[in-house]
Amino acid sequence: MKINNKLTIGIDLGGTKMSAVLFDGEKVLDENLLATPKNNLENIIIMMAVLIEPLIKRAAEFKRNIKGVGIGAAGVMDIERKKILNSPNLKILNNVKLAEKLEEKIKLKTKLENDAKCFIMAECKLGAGKKYKNIYGLTIGTGIGGGWFINNEIYKGSHGGAGEVGHMIMDSKDLNDLEDLFHNIMKRDPIKIAQRAYSLDRSALRIYEEFSKILGLALANIANIIDPEVFIIGGGVINSADLFLPRAEEIMKKNIQSSEISKKIKILKSKLDKNAGAIGAAMIV
Amino acid sequence: MKINNKLTIGIDLGGTKMSAVLFDGEKVLDENLLATPKNNLENIIIMMAVLIEPLIKRAAEFKRNIKGVGIGAAGVMDIERKKILNSPNLKILNNVKLAEKLEEKIKLKTKLENDAKCFIMAECKLGAGKKYKNIYGLTIGTGIGGGWFINNEIYKGSHGGAGEVGHMIMDSKDLNDLEDLFHNIMKRDPIKIAQRAYSLDRSALRIYEEFSKILGLALANIANIIDPEVFIIGGGVINSADLFLPRAEEIMKKNIQSSEISKKIKILKSKLDKNAGAIGAAMIV
Repeated sequence: MKINNKLTIGIDLGGTKMSAVLFDGEKVLDENLLATPKNNLENIIIMMAVLIEPLIKRAAEFKRNIKGVGIGAAGVMDIERKKILNSPNLKILNNVKLAEKLEEKIKLKTKLENDAKCFIMAECKLGAGKKYKNIYGLTIGTGIGGGWFINNEIYKGSHGGAGEVGHMIMDSKDLNDLEDLFHNIMKRDPIKIAQRAYSLDRSALRIYEEFSKILGLALANIANIIDPEVFIIGGGVINSADLFLPRAEEIMKKNIQSSEISKKIKILKSKLDKNAGAIGAAMIV
Repeated sequence: MKINNKLTIGIDLGGTKMSAVLFDGEKVLDENLLATPKNNLENIIIMMAVLIEPLIKRAAEFKRNIKGVGIGAAGVMDIERKKILNSPNLKILNNVKLAEKLEEKIKLKTKLENDAKCFIMAECKLGAGKKYKNIYGLTIGTGIGGGWFINNEIYKGSHGGAGEVGHMIMDSKDLNDLEDLFHNIMKRDPIKIAQRAYSLDRSALRIYEEFSKILGLALANIANIIDPEVFIIGGGVINSADLFLPRAEEIMKKNIQSSEISKKIKILKSKLDKNAGAIGAAMIV
């Protein structure tokens, strides 16, 4: 995407808040943030329209047109039918044609994509991945999302179901997937555990050791299937990357099938700020 | 690959025997089979030359040129440097530039590819996958190999390491990968266990139930990452597919993140005969 006369708007629709950016293909010209109304579909649509209203006005001030709007939301997307098949944070959006509904409301072309994939798209094009062409991205926050950037776009799969790496079963006995194991280890409180680990609390350090192992194995599994140039890791946990990333990298390298290839695959930290998800959504338009 | 004046030769280099075909892009014109000399690199090269000699003569009888030779062998390949990085069946081939060595000997352009990928390529282009464009193939025999057919070719990854699906860790506690679990369950004797299972031996049926579970979960993991149109399963076990494939499909579908997508992904059995690997090798030239 190059700078051109037309701007795009990206919305990052989260479970508790929604943010939006006005984007020129390279930088954010304006932004906005609102709380997400949780239990009423009509309200979500209205509030998304309210969220982007000042951005539309701002574009008019710049005398530039808006090409369209991108929405990034959690869940598996049916890209063609503009529908969320499986919305974990906002159950009310299950099987809703969200892009179509917003499009009717705001009269601007609207597209829909998984939020982790938006984040990864932004990181790949403008952040840590700028120099690379075959990148696997993971976001580790409330859940674990994934996306594979190749041929200058995010690979979607035959039915829009690719990148659901959080659901990779890694404990076949008890049917736990990567996300289950992450939650079991972190008790849904990685930030608190990180604080304790930085104070050298032994049990907290052990928790991060366990998390490093699981993450390293998951990365090796992806490497053995997809063999990317680099991984990019983002999401809430990345602020305490020194607690787990070096060890995860070690474990990944040990478990990649070819030792020669394992030397070549790097892990990078995400670089963009809190707007990355919305920027990525603006990029899909 | 279309029928053209030039023929190709494909070699399937196995741990105990090596086979070769003379191929016109659509059908096998001639074939040959020899035992693999195991412990001497020079002998392997000589015997490969002996193996294809009658095929070269046959091409001359047809007054048609040979475009080149493809070799399919077990292991991770460094495609660009024509080298086997990791040869599990013939340790003597580790880090050997096999294609280069044969090329010197026979004075025909020679390429190298993983044997499972050759098999899958043939199945995708001429066998069970003919109608599809995004196919994930697995061969389950002595080991478990994989390959992903997309954009009309086998995806290689950034360093030639893609498709090592047998090494996907599925028991993160004890670090067992799919292949380990397969061997633990089958005790390296799936044919004998299949015979017992067909006689309704309960413990043998339980073994196949366990295998179905592991395979179904592995397929779901791949589906959640890559989202192919179909899977193709081949290799030795496919002759007793009715003992495990219906149940594996059930388990796969249960573990694909979107239930709507899980309805769409099919599992097919391989269709080609024993020459599939050599045909695939002839296709990579």
